[in-house]
This record gives sequence, structure tokens and C-alpha cells, in this order.
Amino acid sequence: MTRHMPAGPLQSGSTIGILGGGQLGRMLALAAARYGFKTHLYSPEPDSPAFHVASHHTCAPYSDRSALQSFAASVDIVTFEFENVPAETAGFLAGLVPIEPRPQILEISQDRFHEKTFLGKLGLRVTDFAPVSNIAEFAAAIGRIGRPCVLKTRRLGYDGKGQMLVDAAMNYENAWQAIGAAPAILEAFVPFSSELSVIVARGYDGTTRLYDVSENRHHNHILHTSTVPAAINRKTAQEARGIAGKIADALEYIGVLAVELFLVREGGEERLLVNEIAPRVHNSGHWTEDACQISQFGMHIRAVAGWPLPEPWRFYDVQMQNLLGHDVEQAFRFAAEPGACIHLYGKTQAREGRKMGHINWLKPLRNPNS
Amino acid sequence: MTRHMPAGPLQSGSTIGILGGGQLGRMLALAAARYGFKTHLYSPEPDSPAFHVASHHTCAPYSDRSALQSFAASVDIVTFEFENVPAETAGFLAGLVPIEPRPQILEISQDRFHEKTFLGKLGLRVTDFAPVSNIAEFAAAIGRIGRPCVLKTRRLGYDGKGQMLVDAAMNYENAWQAIGAAPAILEAFVPFSSELSVIVARGYDGTTRLYDVSENRHHNHILHTSTVPAAINRKTAQEARGIAGKIADALEYIGVLAVELFLVREGGEERLLVNEIAPRVHNSGHWTEDACQISQFGMHIRAVAGWPLPEPWRFYDVQMQNLLGHDVEQAFRFAAEPGACIHLYGKTQAREGRKMGHINWLKPLRNPNS
Repeated sequence: MTRHMPAGPLQSGSTIGILGGGQLGRMLALAAARYGFKTHLYSPEPDSPAFHVASHHTCAPYSDRSALQSFAASVDIVTFEFENVPAETAGFLAGLVPIEPRPQILEISQDRFHEKTFLGKLGLRVTDFAPVSNIAEFAAAIGRIGRPCVLKTRRLGYDGKGQMLVDAAMNYENAWQAIGAAPAILEAFVPFSSELSVIVARGYDGTTRLYDVSENRHHNHILHTSTVPAAINRKTAQEARGIAGKIADALEYIGVLAVELFLVREGGEERLLVNEIAPRVHNSGHWTEDACQISQFGMHIRAVAGWPLPEPWRFYDVQMQNLLGHDVEQAFRFAAEPGACIHLYGKTQAREGRKMGHINWLKPLRNPNS
Repeated sequence: MTRHMPAGPLQSGSTIGILGGGQLGRMLALAAARYGFKTHLYSPEPDSPAFHVASHHTCAPYSDRSALQSFAASVDIVTFEFENVPAETAGFLAGLVPIEPRPQILEISQDRFHEKTFLGKLGLRVTDFAPVSNIAEFAAAIGRIGRPCVLKTRRLGYDGKGQMLVDAAMNYENAWQAIGAAPAILEAFVPFSSELSVIVARGYDGTTRLYDVSENRHHNHILHTSTVPAAINRKTAQEARGIAGKIADALEYIGVLAVELFLVREGGEERLLVNEIAPRVHNSGHWTEDACQISQFGMHIRAVAGWPLPEPWRFYDVQMQNLLGHDVEQAFRFAAEPGACIHLYGKTQAREGRKMGHINWLKPLRNPNS
């Protein structure tokens, strides 16, 4: 299939189409507006928070070819806020209009086995893994990889959904049923001391821009905080950023990409394993909105629009704290605290665990050159 | 008339109505979105740039009471992006819904004579002035104030429109005709060495927040650059901020107010005169978007929403440069420069002198405590 490329940098006034109407789409639309771009949001959810800040929106299923065709005709380029855009949707749009990051990247990132295989071939360290498509393969894989290990569906897992820790006590048939007996991947458990991520942006000319490494803590498998700088050696930080740049280059990536890593400490040494990649702006990059000259959202918009990418100067130490569910009712109280930069997504229902907003807590720079 | 007050802080998800659909309304709407507020923009201009980032918009004349009524019914509070909101419009809305800043303030700021009289009564230094409603009064006023002096229409002047320098060579009858023989004010010419402004925010509880003083340069009476910190003595900066705070308190102001001042240097001394006030976010405060923890737009939204007002930490020296007319075509080139934060308003026609966007040029802090 021909890859549609923009003829040149998108002029202010052009329209950027965005698939997905959640908070990431909303923050992308807000960032696009700053450069004078119009946005057209496409989402099947009627109460998509991003609709409120977009010039246009289409509320239709991702399978609605007629709606997709009108959408494509109204925009100059398409991008997306989430990596589970159906391959057929992305492929159909790609035949009509430039779409970045390119759909082939979704095929890698939507399947944990393809993803780990890709990372391994790049020479990057990943945990031991094996594909599992039936209970016999699962038993064999456990035999090779050992316990504890983690069984994950190959597709559509996020925030801890579709995965199961298989420890010594776990009946593996139960684990297989628990993830829905779907095509899966078995991974060796990584005894990590912390989880890290790097946000990288890459433009059409191959320029890459790397944000500082963040250290991420999860509660109940949902991101709770991201802290920058991460409490890691300078050499480890350089290595993490190098890994992110290598992945972006290998994918000939356009836009913002998040690379999640595990840090393992052994005998005073720090060692990195790549956990997964997300071909989009990422919750662990929300700190960039207040602590940097340009946010991950602005950087993504500039990358896909073919604009020059600035260095993402960081001028604060920062901790991003997610506001989940009814936490959001505390936002007003937090708003009075020094250094608290509040972001709320305008979602109407504060369901348990739902991402409602976040706070970037700014502190004076401790380590400007980390 | 009863002043409608919000019952308490506006909850995220509430709707803020904004009168005026230009770049200031657009940037207010973007700031409101960050806190999860919806916005409803009201403007008679069909191609209002703010419409593209608002949840709702109404395109109708300011005199359309039926449209105003629907607008009022759909919002929790009303604010505005420009000070020339017709008094009748503001008064009509004030009978239906909270409106901040309160309409009585418009009556002061819309009339240069009322404005200067108010400032003088506050004990603030303003240039000599006299009301002029006919040619005889004009002649008498020139006799008292002397030349050079400046004749200005009392109402609806901006960006140098509706004013005329009356120097020794000027036939004063021509000046009177040039401004349309409308009710006017004659002001002594101020031999200022620079023009300054202060952005101040004030909340319902009387808290005031003061941004650093900016030094403003105009080309053809249109703001060209605002530079922070201003090249003035520390004592003068304190005095300027003190004046802005005093005005905000005297007006029992809610929201962001801009105070423009003249700096006169005489024998090594710096002296301030208040030039005018603008009861709204202001072009000379656009630098706050990239150089501060919170922009003037966010601060205004928080003030009218009854949220706590943070200290507006400044972490950069900055020069804001307006992009006028076809300057905007240079934006893409500027985007590659280090420290250039680009803002474009999405206006379709780049008419001569039209404000199309601005760039905040960031530089490391020279003087963190100015």
C-alpha cells in the first residue's frame, strides 16, 4: 500500500484528525489548537471528553467506512490517541490520507509477541518469553521459563487487564481460563526494583528528541505517579534514552512514542529490560506539560505536522500524580498547594479507578543535567 | 440590580460563558478546558477563532436578547475577552447569571474620562486631562493643558484608533474632525521613556496575585513586543505592582486586569503615570503562557471560577513578539529556533496589522527576584 505523506509542513489552519476521544485525544487537540490547527476527533463514545475542545467531531464505530471516509476527506492528516485502533480502520484510512504513526507500527505494538520479538531482534534486552496458543504450549513454556512467570494475552491488555501472575501456588489451567484462553505470551517474571519510561519524539527528517527518564509507580496495575528525575545512575538514564531513540529509529517512527522499561538492581549494578512500547502520547509523560518548554502533546503534534522539533528543556523536578475515580473531588483542595498544576479531563462520571485528571507537582530543579 | 454570585467554587464540568470570540477568548477557552470546564463562546463573527476550541458557541449580535437568554441559561458564569461589551448586553446578562468582572467596571473602563477620573480619585498619578464635547471646550482645554497634547475619543478607541497628537503645527479643528467630532478627552502628552504593564488577578476572597512588570514596545500603535523583566529599578517595579493591586482592590475586581503605565525618567528618577486599564486578559500578558507556572488565562479562569489563585512563579526571562499580518508566515521558520514558543490563533485571513499569533522567546532567568 502506498504510504501517503504530507507534501510539506502542515500550515496553521490545517485540520488534524485524531482517532480516540479520551483525555489523550483531548490534550492532543488542545496542543494542536495552540499552533492554529483545527482538529477533528473520531470516537464511538458519545461523551468523549475530547469532543469539547475539537473543531469537529464524528461519533461513529471504528468499523463505519462511510463515517471514516467523510472523516478522511475533512482532514489533512490522521493520528491517534491509543494503540488499539483496529488494524482494518487504520489500513482503510491509510488508503485515503496520511496517517502517522504509520499503521504497520500498530501491528507490532498490538501484539505482545510481535512486540517482544521486534525488540529482541533489535538487540535490546527483554525478559524471556514464549508464545502460548493452547494449554499444551502453556505447560511447555512454563517448563522452559520457570515460575514465577506472567501470562498475558497477546492483544488488548492494558492497566493490568488480561494478565495473570503464575507463581508456585497457581494452578496453570486456572490462569489459562482467567485470561480467557486467548492467544497469549508467557513471560519470565522480572524482579524489578522500579519501572521507568522514556518519551521520545521523531520527525520526518529523522530528528529524535528525548525527554528525561521518569520513574513510575503503579497501584492496582494503574499508573499512580511518575517522578522526574528518576532515582537512577546517570549512565542508566543515558542508556534508557538511547534505547528509546533506537526503537524510534528502527520503526521509522513519526510522532511521540513511549518506551516502558524495568530496572533491575543486582549487586550494585543497574540493568534495563524493555517491557513494552506505546506508539502514542502516554500517561507517564503528562509531567512534560508543566515541567518542560514543550509538552509531549505539542511535540507529537509538531512531529506529525512536519514542524521542527525543539529540545524539550526541563526546568523543574516534577511528580505527576493521577487523580483516579473520586480522587478528583480533592482537586480543588490540591489547587491551593504551591507548585500544584491541576489538569482535569471534564469526564462526567467518576467511576472507581477511572482516570479523571492529574496533578503535576513542581519542585525547583535538583539536578538540571540529569 | 442584584449581583448574581456563584454559590461556591465552580465544579469541573461546569460551563463558563465567554463573550467575544477572538484570540483572547480562544486562549481563555483553552485554559478553561485544562480544568475540565466546558465553554460556551458568544460572538457575532461567524469565523471567530475561539469557536474551534469551545464546547458550544452562539453566533449572534450582542443585541439579540433571545440568543443572550439561551446563552445565559446554558452557562454557570459569564466572563468576557474584551472591554467593549455593550453596557446593555452586560446589564441584561447580569440579571440572569453571574458575570465577572462585574459590568459596572466596564462603565469605568469604556470611557476614558470616567477611567482617568477614577484613577485620579484613587490618588494615582495620571497625566493632565479634560473632557471635550465640542470645539469650544477643545480650544479651552488646549489653552489650559498646552501643546503637545493628545485628543482621544472617550469611547471605543484601541490600537491607536480614535486618537490624534496635537502638536504645535496641528490645526486643532482638523484634529477634532479627525476623531469624528465625538465626545473626547484631551490629555497632556507624556514624554515617556517606556510603556509598562502589570497583569493582576483578584479572587472573590480578595486575594490578589501580581505578575512581573513587562515593558511594551509598539509599532504603529500596535503592541510589538513585551519584555520581562522590564529595564526599571526594583523600587519602580514594586510601585507598579502596588498600583495594579490598589486598582484591583478599589474595583472589587474578580478576574485578570491589565494596568498600563508610562515610565517617565527625569534627572535619574523614575516616575510612573497610569495610562489606562483593561478589565480582561491582555496582549501584554501573553508572555505568562510559557514563562510562568500559570498563565494569565488560567489565572482568570480560576479567579472567576472561585478556585484558589497560585503565585504566578516566573521561571524564565521572556520577550513576547506579536506576529502581525503576513509575519505569521515566518512562524514555521521561527519554530526551529531555541526557546521560541509559538502560538497561532488559527485566523484564516492575514490582513495587514491583524494579530495572527505570537512567539514567546524564553531565555534563562537573569533576575529571578525582579
